[in-house]
Amino acid sequence: MPAQPRGRDVSLIIGGARSGKSRFAEGLATATGLPVAYVATARGDDAEMRERIARHRAERPASWTTIEVPLALSRAILTEAAPARVVLVDCLTLWLTNVMLGNLDVEHEADGLLAALGASAGPVVLVSNEVGYGIVPDNALARAFRDHQGRLNQRVAGLASRVTLVAAGLPLDLKLPKEAA
Amino acid sequence: MPAQPRGRDVSLIIGGARSGKSRFAEGLATATGLPVAYVATARGDDAEMRERIARHRAERPASWTTIEVPLALSRAILTEAAPARVVLVDCLTLWLTNVMLGNLDVEHEADGLLAALGASAGPVVLVSNEVGYGIVPDNALARAFRDHQGRLNQRVAGLASRVTLVAAGLPLDLKLPKEAA
Amino acid sequence: MPAQPRGRDVSLIIGGARSGKSRFAEGLATATGLPVAYVATARGDDAEMRERIARHRAERPASWTTIEVPLALSRAILTEAAPARVVLVDCLTLWLTNVMLGNLDVEHEADGLLAALGASAGPVVLVSNEVGYGIVPDNALARAFRDHQGRLNQRVAGLASRVTLVAAGLPLDLKLPKEAA
Repeated sequence: MPAQPRGRDVSLIIGGARSGKSRFAEGLATATGLPVAYVATARGDDAEMRERIARHRAERPASWTTIEVPLALSRAILTEAAPARVVLVDCLTLWLTNVMLGNLDVEHEADGLLAALGASAGPVVLVSNEVGYGIVPDNALARAFRDHQGRLNQRVAGLASRVTLVAAGLPLDLKLPKEAA
Repeated sequence: MPAQPRGRDVSLIIGGARSGKSRFAEGLATATGLPVAYVATARGDDAEMRERIARHRAERPASWTTIEVPLALSRAILTEAAPARVVLVDCLTLWLTNVMLGNLDVEHEADGLLAALGASAGPVVLVSNEVGYGIVPDNALARAFRDHQGRLNQRVAGLASRVTLVAAGLPLDLKLPKEAA
Repeated sequence: MPAQPRGRDVSLIIGGARSGKSRFAEGLATATGLPVAYVATARGDDAEMRERIARHRAERPASWTTIEVPLALSRAILTEAAPARVVLVDCLTLWLTNVMLGNLDVEHEADGLLAALGASAGPVVLVSNEVGYGIVPDNALARAFRDHQGRLNQRVAGLASRVTLVAAGLPLDLKLPKEAA
């Protein structure tokens, strides 16, 4: 097949906690053969989270560059994206948490993210959680969070060229790029 | 293709909170080209719910008729269903909530719903939540609710001609009518 | 088709609470035509659980042998597995609960389970819950549980020849044996 101009190259990998979605996304990034800019949105605010961050980092190839971006995600995507580099964002759920805890305007931040993804100069892989498959949470903040998360996933999925649900480490494609379908 | 008698025309659209399941179901109803009777099971008991109801209503075509049916769902289906009209029920989860809060017999009400769906004179689209993918809830009522919801989804799915899981706004078909398979 | 040596025959059936996963797994075991050794991991510690156990048991064929195995799962698999018998384990989620409540080393127990599945002399069907699709739980034990459950599902799925997600009683194949694919 002759080389041809590719369309938008944004992949969204969704799944539950400990579903293997991060590992799947890392495999996707690795498979491109391009260098990877890993955008970590986690905040090491407590011991449990710091342990988790350290464990994840130890599992990633040493050659990847890691950038910690708790909030300024759209700027990071615009800065890091390049035709010969993959930007891997892990994950939108922690970013959304940071946005809400920082009392920022979620819709405004989401607009910025969508604009950055639409304007990205290179491939982007994003990891996000499914959080809406349980009983309605008791507290209003948790309900607001899952509403925002669900809407954010829908918006990114609508723009993405590929959307994959990961369960028990196994992928289920919800949307595939035309060349792969 | 010549017109042929269709079999049962019941579609069940399931998904998590804010998964895009209502929008998908609305698209399914619209795609039939038939007028739509929208059966809303939500109760506007508090401000958060009233705001949500108003937002959903504003997003629906003005031509649809809306009927508020917190409890008498089987009667509404039997009354509204017609060969040239789609009944769209949104959603079974709020209806089940109303049944349980009203101390009605869930199995009896579910039997009535299944009978109405089996006898429906026209196409019905139902929206329902998946609520069983989290940690076991602490309180007994929440556990009973997710048991009832799971069983109800299974029963309606067993009778339905089409069952679709929606995640991040994207459909995954679990069951398709024979003509479409 | 000539008879041929089969590869590993381990099936993992995952799903939410009341998703129909147990019934689907039972159907899979029944369809082999082999006698079934049913390995029940539930503990009848309280009335709600005893009622659930009794209901499930009444729904199973009387010809099945039932073994109650709250903890010693790898030994039970090694003992019961045979080329002409199916071992059906229902479920890994209650087993993991028992392991954690018993203060056993989860990783060590999981290693033993994986080894037993790898060495099994006959077909094994395992049922497990998806518990990671809700809001992050408030308490640390629940968070640890869903992390362990997610990792366990990934490990068993990695070894299994078949992995099926069940929703509303309907199967979605995540991994199929080569002969069936």
